[in-house]
Amino acid sequence: MIDYKLLEALTTVIECEGFERAGVVLGISQSAVSQRIKTLEIRLGQPVLVRSPALRATPAGQRLLNHVQQVQLLERDLAKSLPAISEPSARLRVALNADSLATWWADVVGAFCSDEDVLLDLVIEDQDVGLRRMREGDVAACLCSAPQPVAGARSVHLGSMIYRPLATPGYVRRHFPRGFNTRELAEAPAIVFGPNDQLQNRFLSQCGYHGSVPHHLCPSSEGFVKLALAGMGYGMIPEMQAQQELEAGTLVSITPDQPLQVELYWHFWRHSGGVMDRLTQTLTSANRLNS
Amino acid sequence: MIDYKLLEALTTVIECEGFERAGVVLGISQSAVSQRIKTLEIRLGQPVLVRSPALRATPAGQRLLNHVQQVQLLERDLAKSLPAISEPSARLRVALNADSLATWWADVVGAFCSDEDVLLDLVIEDQDVGLRRMREGDVAACLCSAPQPVAGARSVHLGSMIYRPLATPGYVRRHFPRGFNTRELAEAPAIVFGPNDQLQNRFLSQCGYHGSVPHHLCPSSEGFVKLALAGMGYGMIPEMQAQQELEAGTLVSITPDQPLQVELYWHFWRHSGGVMDRLTQTLTSANRLNS
Repeated sequence: MIDYKLLEALTTVIECEGFERAGVVLGISQSAVSQRIKTLEIRLGQPVLVRSPALRATPAGQRLLNHVQQVQLLERDLAKSLPAISEPSARLRVALNADSLATWWADVVGAFCSDEDVLLDLVIEDQDVGLRRMREGDVAACLCSAPQPVAGARSVHLGSMIYRPLATPGYVRRHFPRGFNTRELAEAPAIVFGPNDQLQNRFLSQCGYHGSVPHHLCPSSEGFVKLALAGMGYGMIPEMQAQQELEAGTLVSITPDQPLQVELYWHFWRHSGGVMDRLTQTLTSANRLNS
Repeated sequence: MIDYKLLEALTTVIECEGFERAGVVLGISQSAVSQRIKTLEIRLGQPVLVRSPALRATPAGQRLLNHVQQVQLLERDLAKSLPAISEPSARLRVALNADSLATWWADVVGAFCSDEDVLLDLVIEDQDVGLRRMREGDVAACLCSAPQPVAGARSVHLGSMIYRPLATPGYVRRHFPRGFNTRELAEAPAIVFGPNDQLQNRFLSQCGYHGSVPHHLCPSSEGFVKLALAGMGYGMIPEMQAQQELEAGTLVSITPDQPLQVELYWHFWRHSGGVMDRLTQTLTSANRLNS
């Protein structure tokens, strides 16, 4: 079996961001921590930590960290039936899209995390990149738009989010004075999340437009809504994120015909144990998405 | 003088994310685009683009992109007095902290960007990292907490944001049933932005606590508020971001004594011309921050 003392040293160094603090937490000397990391690296034949510019795990180290998380999840299940093996909180590293985090995610998982004493490491990834993190063993679970699970994992469909191209009424009057049309679309500033915003591209091609458009880059869900509200552009915003603004009429769809639907799937490793099963159960029964 | 045809090819390849699309935009063939990039790389003696895993600029290439942005800003000024030299929108790459983007930023700069036809490339960086981007020539301006400008740049003080450790009343009852104290602080789940969250560290040491605390990692301003509202932890949240929740009593400070103040400085290159001067003027006269 793996020497978990070594893995625990790695986990603690990363969590504490330093050998000295890790030593304090583990109750051993700093040089004992270094020695454990060195032993681990010799066994693996490759480094698990990069020291500069900042201390972080190598891809191999990250796989070990993920493995430790998986083991800790199993240990938590054990502690339910064997409370004497008391454990600190479980950590769960989850990749998810920024829009879910900005809308329904916390509502759905909040009580679960408090009740089960689970701490989350959230990683924001575009719908499509999350799955790569999963494949690389970097996360314990991911929420993304790809249906197909990676080898060793399962996926369940949670529902979909509806997106509309929203802007202020003033923006619509200024940029589409004669109503929505693709000629003016080519000149109207958009707000896009990143240089390769799939939703924006899907929206444009659904409109039958295949050129480029002037755009602000804004890698933040909340920033997106703020920029739209400030009249700077239109952006593909989840209906549920702009409910208040849609009701108040401060944001409107620049075209009524083009809502986009993004399916969301929950991916998680098989055999992750009861905590993951119950979290999956919480997510599937929440019913907060369009089905 | 630099051959701007070459730089324009680089800018367009990055913006269009591909040689073929860049060719379409520039009205030249794909191989002519490649040739311009190659010529540029031969002159520089180093690559300006990395092709895999995704097409992106090398640090040298990024410096060129920034230079082009600076030149375009100057060209826009010129176009004001020489309207015949009509120009497409200026792009401005700005690094700023997530909390400013989630709160006051768009309100303040929105009208300016629409009126002056400026498009923003926003880069979210922790208060302290933004300045490094500035030094590396990666952004045209940055909003951060460091007062000292880098060589060739200026900085102006915009004011400060007030942060408080906010959680739900239910969370406070559960984790601090006997009132706020550092013994229970050690056990109470926090919400932190990233592995090296300066604000959280400042808060803990202001409380006289120097150990680690259980925490969720959540690299999103909006997610922060959502996790706090779901009772998952307390987080250092800007007062202005939680105004509604504070008034409604859905979020409260876990301790009344520890507000933290983060100063914000606007850094920009000297000689960036009138657009930058007017943007700076817009920011300094907005008066949306605590002074």
